[in-house]
Amino acid sequence: MKAFVTVMALTGALLSSTPVLAQFAKPEDAVRYRQSVMFIMQYNVGRVAAMVQGKAPFDAKVAAESAANAEFMSKLPWPAYVAGTDKVGNTRAKPEIWSDAAKFNETAEKLQAEMAKFSAAAKTGSLDNIKATLGGVGGTCKSCHDNFRKD
Amino acid sequence: MKAFVTVMALTGALLSSTPVLAQFAKPEDAVRYRQSVMFIMQYNVGRVAAMVQGKAPFDAKVAAESAANAEFMSKLPWPAYVAGTDKVGNTRAKPEIWSDAAKFNETAEKLQAEMAKFSAAAKTGSLDNIKATLGGVGGTCKSCHDNFRKD
Repeated sequence: MKAFVTVMALTGALLSSTPVLAQFAKPEDAVRYRQSVMFIMQYNVGRVAAMVQGKAPFDAKVAAESAANAEFMSKLPWPAYVAGTDKVGNTRAKPEIWSDAAKFNETAEKLQAEMAKFSAAAKTGSLDNIKATLGGVGGTCKSCHDNFRKD
Repeated sequence: MKAFVTVMALTGALLSSTPVLAQFAKPEDAVRYRQSVMFIMQYNVGRVAAMVQGKAPFDAKVAAESAANAEFMSKLPWPAYVAGTDKVGNTRAKPEIWSDAAKFNETAEKLQAEMAKFSAAAKTGSLDNIKATLGGVGGTCKSCHDNFRKD
């Protein structure tokens, strides 16, 4: 019971009653959440990219795990793009995320689709298959950053 | 192809040839990686805990998704506890993580097991079932923080 009370105390402050923030207690938390997701996603893609590049030895198991991690992460950041959180902390989010929400959402969907292909390819254990999907992932990352992230 | 080259350029520096760092290019990246994972995990547990507490309305779908996210995250941080990264940046990692590795690993396994129970409970759609597993999650978080994280 003590542990239960502790987790309550630790986490009870996380939910806000402010509707606009939905799942985030503070705008800063939304920024930190999506940046955390992006960092983990980038790292897992990078691990596989290094294998494709020949900078790291190909390890099919690590590649499959890393790609599955990246695929999972690609589903997580979107609720954290809470309107107004382009003015918080050290975010590089552009206001176009909200002013051109249809395009942003389309890119978000595309990223998840490309990540699913990437992860499926990695499960086959073939470096050639992985290589064939990496451009789609990288292109979607780049296009979203070009349009929706400040330099 | 340009996108492919871009993802290569973006990610090619991520892999280190330093064996001790394994999957991380820099010690700071390992710290950031595990802190990112912990933040996302904590946030997803917190979302469910708020429902158990009555601080947020119970939404079975959000609870199940959040618990599944937390379960997934519970598998990720462990390779990022690279020896020596208790001396890097603003980490609160204690040296006991490595000097008492058996106990740390045991706690890591326990967390994953408790998170699996928590996520399975959340899939049932019953708040009572979720409540019954939250103490196990919170207790394992607390015990690991007490033993392996500086105040």
